[in-house]
Amino acid sequence: MHFNLFIIDTGHHEASWRLPGSEPLAHIDVGYHERLARVAEAARFDSVFLADTPVLWNDPGRRPSGRLEPLTLLTALARATRRIGLIATASTSYNDPFNLARRLASLDHISEGRAGWNIVTTAGDDAARNFGLDAQPAHAERYQRAGEFVEVCRKLWDSWEDDAIVADAGRGVHAEASRVHPIDHEGRFFRVRGPLNLPRSPQGHPLLVQAGSSEDGKRFAARHAEAVFTAQQTLAEAQAFYADLKRRAALAGRDPDGIKILPGLVPVLGSTESEALALEAELDRLILAEHARDRLAALLRVEPSRLALDGPLPDDLPAEDEIEGAKSRYTLIVELGRRERLTVRQLIGRLGGGRGHRTFAGTPEQVADTIEYWGAHGAADGFNIMPAVLPSGLELFAEQVVPLLQRRGLMRRDYEGATLREHYGLARPASRYAAPPPEPVTAGGPAFHLATRES
Amino acid sequence: MHFNLFIIDTGHHEASWRLPGSEPLAHIDVGYHERLARVAEAARFDSVFLADTPVLWNDPGRRPSGRLEPLTLLTALARATRRIGLIATASTSYNDPFNLARRLASLDHISEGRAGWNIVTTAGDDAARNFGLDAQPAHAERYQRAGEFVEVCRKLWDSWEDDAIVADAGRGVHAEASRVHPIDHEGRFFRVRGPLNLPRSPQGHPLLVQAGSSEDGKRFAARHAEAVFTAQQTLAEAQAFYADLKRRAALAGRDPDGIKILPGLVPVLGSTESEALALEAELDRLILAEHARDRLAALLRVEPSRLALDGPLPDDLPAEDEIEGAKSRYTLIVELGRRERLTVRQLIGRLGGGRGHRTFAGTPEQVADTIEYWGAHGAADGFNIMPAVLPSGLELFAEQVVPLLQRRGLMRRDYEGATLREHYGLARPASRYAAPPPEPVTAGGPAFHLATRES
Repeated sequence: MHFNLFIIDTGHHEASWRLPGSEPLAHIDVGYHERLARVAEAARFDSVFLADTPVLWNDPGRRPSGRLEPLTLLTALARATRRIGLIATASTSYNDPFNLARRLASLDHISEGRAGWNIVTTAGDDAARNFGLDAQPAHAERYQRAGEFVEVCRKLWDSWEDDAIVADAGRGVHAEASRVHPIDHEGRFFRVRGPLNLPRSPQGHPLLVQAGSSEDGKRFAARHAEAVFTAQQTLAEAQAFYADLKRRAALAGRDPDGIKILPGLVPVLGSTESEALALEAELDRLILAEHARDRLAALLRVEPSRLALDGPLPDDLPAEDEIEGAKSRYTLIVELGRRERLTVRQLIGRLGGGRGHRTFAGTPEQVADTIEYWGAHGAADGFNIMPAVLPSGLELFAEQVVPLLQRRGLMRRDYEGATLREHYGLARPASRYAAPPPEPVTAGGPAFHLATRES
Repeated sequence: MHFNLFIIDTGHHEASWRLPGSEPLAHIDVGYHERLARVAEAARFDSVFLADTPVLWNDPGRRPSGRLEPLTLLTALARATRRIGLIATASTSYNDPFNLARRLASLDHISEGRAGWNIVTTAGDDAARNFGLDAQPAHAERYQRAGEFVEVCRKLWDSWEDDAIVADAGRGVHAEASRVHPIDHEGRFFRVRGPLNLPRSPQGHPLLVQAGSSEDGKRFAARHAEAVFTAQQTLAEAQAFYADLKRRAALAGRDPDGIKILPGLVPVLGSTESEALALEAELDRLILAEHARDRLAALLRVEPSRLALDGPLPDDLPAEDEIEGAKSRYTLIVELGRRERLTVRQLIGRLGGGRGHRTFAGTPEQVADTIEYWGAHGAADGFNIMPAVLPSGLELFAEQVVPLLQRRGLMRRDYEGATLREHYGLARPASRYAAPPPEPVTAGGPAFHLATRES
């Protein structure tokens, strides 16, 4: 199975920074992130991942807010590690494809083939207001732009053939111009001439990751994603999502095994079950209910005063198709509250750990059991591990859960490949502009071939 | 005096990659750049600098082409060095201020106060065609946008006061929301609400660098730049530029000492003068005249067939005010050719080393002499060192020129400050949103103050 570490400063629980010993400047501390990435690499995770949105989306009082830009931070992590994959979130609504394709390819070069891109369309009017708009573009519009954005990036990533560089000093020819191609893209959202101003990167292009589970999101994932992060509360829902997405990928003409599905899991660990539950209770006690209610109200598009802390969710919440952003997260939260008949206060506790991801308080054996069970029952190709508290939750996971997973054959004991794509068992894509490779004749080849250069 | 190392893969001479022993993949090799930065740091340079443009602007055959994105690469260099400044080029015409301000502030955090931004407006229709345009915006229009772009960035960099983070776990207040400010910018080019999604960085904001010497460029520099890179062929021209820019800065209400002027210098070093001249001749021999003529013709806006290699420049070249991009470089090249009555072939040789920057072939003593002379005669606050061949030209400069400069008191023997701003002797700007600091009372202070946190 595949394991991604989702890093968020002091942990996924919003009150984690209030625990004794937390590092209050973790969110802007590169050394802190390097230490986490090294622990994850020593534990043989496939990758680390950083979420992002181009807006200050928290009340800065509530928890550490305003983080280092992910592609920038991951470049530092690339040099502090050797094998683990590095997945950055970047928005297709508030970037240009030329610049973003270049930056992602730069990280892929610098990390020697370990870059991944979590493709997001960025929900919310607040983000739009940092980019000259009054309100966000409609959900469907954002996804249409995202589709074309990825298409442009892929053309740019293909624009240098792998063997374009010949470095023939005698002739004075560094690259063969005939193997470097303009892309001449003209679409509804973008006109981009190309080629990219960077030779093709070790993975051909970064691993493409997606995380929205709305109808538009699933359609997009089936077409483009090579890995999917998803929030799933129950086994049955996770199985349905898994089967649906694999089926959609097959219908789109893709190998269903070429899209890896990783539900989020927020482990709250203790050496006994009661220790784990005590930590969970302590964390929930530290949530400031007023803050959390305001935030839940914003997600649900209701006035905060309509949410009584000790009452159930209101009956008259909007339907998902009236929501213009974060659709699938909206539905998950409403269904969780109703299915388990939670009060607003209880729902806040459940969301404090992972904003909709599955929180699991228990012993290392119990965590390993649930991972194995979901994997064996068609619900997951792996997990997006989101420790409630960092670094301790990662350290405990690495020390106590990983050895169990390794003994059960669910997690690698050492890296076999060098690239993120190899960790996830995915092929390196060929450039669309390259002629099919000739039959091999001898052991020779071009003097400088990026895919095979020594690291 | 101040010294910046301008890094370009195998060196500033376009034929440098053809010399025996050159590293043909230097332009995409992070380890290569780390080694150069470490040599420059050991020699006590103020900073390293990377140029950039968002287009593949070379014929990829001519020399190594398509480089790693500068802010990404400099993030890796930040972790490979401890003191040296890191200056990235980024375009105001083809970026959004919110994203670029965030990335620059991220580098400033990660490098603990060593980030600089070379602000460029990006000349050329080819770049425009990677961003949905048919042609570049007019020169004046690009500079107007650049001015507003920098204004937006500065507001965003000020949007978190230095002491906004209090990390009060007991109260559950991480940052004081009253010290984090929306900017509500509304201008001709941009509407940006803010605040930035990142606390204020160690330098307050990165060092602002500028490099265009047109009328628009000088006006912009006088208002915004804290350091200026400039191409100057003769002492008299350099003195006139220096006096003019310092005067403009004073007229703009600034301290003229707050804008450091660094002409470019392309040293071609040998232990004897004849060794240096032999290297220069060898480099010029390796230039492919046809390539270079095409490139010169593009710069001069004439058909290549109008440039006879062994004749003078045509008499009927356009005037500078008809040129829409790279105006000052255009004038410099035309004047160099006419003043020294060079043939096209000779002019190409002079430009091969630095595309308009002053090439100086000589012994270490001669190079140190010219640096000292320009500094003592009102032509320079320092130099932008552009070795014709890398890494050897840097190594020779560090081993043989730097000790001479140190003995003459022109270059530091050790770093005194920690930040790039300190290296250049420039103050840390206060946030425009902060109340004036109170009179000091005790040695106490807020628990977490970014400007004073330990590294």
